[in-house]
Amino acid sequence: MKTVVWQSLSEAQQNSVLERPAITEGANITAAVSSVITQVQTDGDAALKALTAKFDNVVLDDIRVSPDAIAEAADRLSDTMKDALQAAYNNISTFHQAQRPQPIRVETQPGVVCEQVTRPINAVGLYIPGGSAPLPSTVLMLGVPAKIAGCKRAILCSPPPIADEILYVAQLCGIEEVYQLGGAQAVAAMAYGTESIAKVDKIFGPGNAYVTEAKRQVSNDFRGAAIDMPAGPSEVLVIADSSADPDFIAADLLSQAEHGPDSQVVLVTPDFALADRVADAIQTQLQQLSRADIARQALGASILIVADSIEACVAISNRYGPEHLIVQTEDPRALLPELDNAGSIFLGLWSPESVGDYASGTNHVLPTYGYTRTYSSLGLADFSKRMTVQELSKDGLLAIAPVVETIADAEGLDAHKRAVTLRVEKLKELL
Amino acid sequence: MKTVVWQSLSEAQQNSVLERPAITEGANITAAVSSVITQVQTDGDAALKALTAKFDNVVLDDIRVSPDAIAEAADRLSDTMKDALQAAYNNISTFHQAQRPQPIRVETQPGVVCEQVTRPINAVGLYIPGGSAPLPSTVLMLGVPAKIAGCKRAILCSPPPIADEILYVAQLCGIEEVYQLGGAQAVAAMAYGTESIAKVDKIFGPGNAYVTEAKRQVSNDFRGAAIDMPAGPSEVLVIADSSADPDFIAADLLSQAEHGPDSQVVLVTPDFALADRVADAIQTQLQQLSRADIARQALGASILIVADSIEACVAISNRYGPEHLIVQTEDPRALLPELDNAGSIFLGLWSPESVGDYASGTNHVLPTYGYTRTYSSLGLADFSKRMTVQELSKDGLLAIAPVVETIADAEGLDAHKRAVTLRVEKLKELL
Repeated sequence: MKTVVWQSLSEAQQNSVLERPAITEGANITAAVSSVITQVQTDGDAALKALTAKFDNVVLDDIRVSPDAIAEAADRLSDTMKDALQAAYNNISTFHQAQRPQPIRVETQPGVVCEQVTRPINAVGLYIPGGSAPLPSTVLMLGVPAKIAGCKRAILCSPPPIADEILYVAQLCGIEEVYQLGGAQAVAAMAYGTESIAKVDKIFGPGNAYVTEAKRQVSNDFRGAAIDMPAGPSEVLVIADSSADPDFIAADLLSQAEHGPDSQVVLVTPDFALADRVADAIQTQLQQLSRADIARQALGASILIVADSIEACVAISNRYGPEHLIVQTEDPRALLPELDNAGSIFLGLWSPESVGDYASGTNHVLPTYGYTRTYSSLGLADFSKRMTVQELSKDGLLAIAPVVETIADAEGLDAHKRAVTLRVEKLKELL
Repeated sequence: MKTVVWQSLSEAQQNSVLERPAITEGANITAAVSSVITQVQTDGDAALKALTAKFDNVVLDDIRVSPDAIAEAADRLSDTMKDALQAAYNNISTFHQAQRPQPIRVETQPGVVCEQVTRPINAVGLYIPGGSAPLPSTVLMLGVPAKIAGCKRAILCSPPPIADEILYVAQLCGIEEVYQLGGAQAVAAMAYGTESIAKVDKIFGPGNAYVTEAKRQVSNDFRGAAIDMPAGPSEVLVIADSSADPDFIAADLLSQAEHGPDSQVVLVTPDFALADRVADAIQTQLQQLSRADIARQALGASILIVADSIEACVAISNRYGPEHLIVQTEDPRALLPELDNAGSIFLGLWSPESVGDYASGTNHVLPTYGYTRTYSSLGLADFSKRMTVQELSKDGLLAIAPVVETIADAEGLDAHKRAVTLRVEKLKELL
C-alpha cells in the first residue's frame, strides 16, 4: 500500500488518488450477454438448459429445485449454522420492519386532500452468485425485505449446485421458487420469462461482469425488468485518529481486500504514525489469511492518506463516497452529521464491517463506485413503490379552479383548463 | 376511439389491447445524441454555443441567465399569474414537506444499534422543455422538492428564449443558476460539466426523444449522472361506473390526449351505455379545443373497454399500470386498497387530472409506459439518499460475534471472521 500526504498533492493529484479504476468490460462481454439474452427469449427453457450445460457443466433435468429438496437442506446443516442464520435473519427483519413507511395524508388547502401510499412490487427476482463459497448472507439481504415489503412473488436464481445454506435461508424467507440458474441466462429468464419461469418486475443481487451487464441490458429494455442499482467493485474507507487500534483497522481493510482483486481499500487519518502501524499490521495479518493472494492484489491499488485534520479526513471521505465507511475516532458519533455519500457507516472500535455484512441488521447491498452520491443503501423502499392520491370536495375544486385555469392557460393546454371549467359550470348550475 | 368488450376477447387479444405502442427511436437518434455528448465533453461552452445556434437558432452571449434578468421576469407577469403560481407552489410545498423522512433507530439486539439516515443529493440538474408554450408547472414539480430536500445546488436548463413564467418559478424555488440550454447538449452539460457549468449528480425532468436518449446515455456512464426515471408517452386510464358524468370523463380523456399524438387514453367501465355517451361527448368537446388535431391523433390509438364488473375494471387497470388513474365510481375510496401500479390516482367526480398536473400538491412527474410496476411518483425521496449506520457496544459485539464468525466461515471469508475474532480476543484480555 502506498502512503500519501494529502496536502502535498496538487488538485489533479488528489483527484487521481481518489479516482477509481475504470471498469473496462469490453465489447465482447456486451455481445456475449446480448446473445445469451436473445437465446433465452427465443428458446426459453431449452436455452436455459443448454447454456447451463455449457457454462456450468451441469445437465439439468429440472431447472426448479423441488420443495422437498429445499426442505431437506436444513437436515444437512449443523444447529450452529442454522442458529447463526436465524439470528442474522431476526436482526435483519427487525431493522427492515422498522423501515415500513407510514401513509401520508395532507389537506393542502381546504377540500384538497393529497396522499402518498405504498404498494409492494408484485414479483421480484433475487440473484445469488455461485463460486467457491456460498453466500447465504446475500439471500438474507434480498429475501427478508422482499418478504416484509409484501412482494407477492419472490424467486431465487443461483448457479448449480446450490449450497444447503442458500436453500435453508430461502426457506426462512418463504421463497418457494428456487431455480438452478446462473449468469446472464438467469437474468434473462427472470426479466423475460420462459415456459417454466414467470417474468418478474425487478431483479436484485450482485454478480460477475456477465450478470452485471445482463442486468444493465434488461433494465434498458422496457419489456425487460428494473434492477436494484448499478454495480461496481466493493470498497471501504476508514477514517481514524490516534485513538484507533491499528490491528482493528488492518483487519477491516483486509476483510474488504479479500473480496476480490479489484476491491478498493482506503485509510484516511491525520496521524502519520498510525498509517505506518496499520501498514505493518496488514503485512502481519496477511500471512494468516486463506485468501491472502486476492487481498494482496487488492492492496496493490489501495492507499493510506495522511490529512491535516479529522475535518479534512471527513471531506476526503465525502468526496470519495465509499460503499463502507468505518469511523474509528475519539468521538465517532460527533462526526455523523458531517458524513455524506456513504453506503453504510460503522461507528467506533466495536463495529467492524463484517458485522454489517452478516448480522447487525443493516443491508449489505450498497451503492459503490461513487454511486453513493445518488443511490441508497438497499432497503424496504426498493421492494415497493410510492403512488400519490388526491381527492377534492366540491368546495375544494371551486377554490382551486382559478389557479389551475390560469396555469393551464399559460401552458396553452385548453383541455386541461376545460376539465376544470366544465365541472365548475356544473357545480354552479347545481347551486 | 374503439370500443371493446373485454370478456369477448381472447387472452392474446386482451394483451394486444393493453399493449403500448413500441417506442422506436432508431439508431439515428442514438448516434446523434452520442455525438452531441462527445462535442460537449470535448469543447465545453464553445460546443454549447455552437449547438444552440444550430438547433435553437439562437446566438448566445451568455449561457447563464443573469440574476437581474431572473428578477425582472416577475415585473412582466400579471398578478393573477403570480398568485396562481404562488398558490400552486404553496400546495406542492405542503405535500412535499409532509414527505420528510424520520430517521430510524433500532436496537436489533442488546448493544447493536442500527440506524437509517437521509442526506440530500448535493447537486441536481432540472431540465424544463421549451416548445410552443412554457411549462412553469414542471419547474414547480422539480424545484420545490429539490429545495425542501436541501440539495445544496439546483440548476435549471431550458432552451432559449426562456419564458418569464419559468424564470419566476425558478426564483420562487431559490434556483440561482439558470442556463439557456435545451436538448441533448443541456443534459451533457449538466452530466459532465463545462467551464461555466459545474457537473451535477442527478438530472430530472421531461423532454423530447433527444433529451430522453441523452438522459439514458449519461445514466449508463458512471462518469455521467443519475436520472429521475425512464420516460415514455403520457397516459390516463379512467375507471367509471354508471354514477359517473360522461362529460367529465370526456374532458379528462381529452386533457390527456392533447399532450401529444402518442398520448394513451383508456376508459374501463362495466356500463356499455356510459362508454357510448363518453364517445359522443368526446366528439362534441373536441370541436372546442385549440389542440384538437393533436388530441384526435392520440384518440385514434385509444380505447373504451367494457368489462363485467368494477372488480374486472380494477384488474384491467392494475394490469395496464397507468401513469394517471381517475376513478369516477359510486364509492371511489372503497376501491383504493385494491388499486396498484399507478403513478397518481384521482378519486371522485371533483378530482380532474389537471388539478394534479398543476396545483393540488402532488407531483406531476410520474412513471409511465408500464414503469408504474416498479417506479414511484416523483417525491422528496428522489432528491435524497438513505445511508445506514451501525454502532456496537463491547457487549453487543461479544454477543453477535459467534453469529458473524459462523456465517463468515461458511462463506470462506477468513478476514471477515478475523476482524471480529481479533476484537473479541482484545476484549477478553481487557476483562
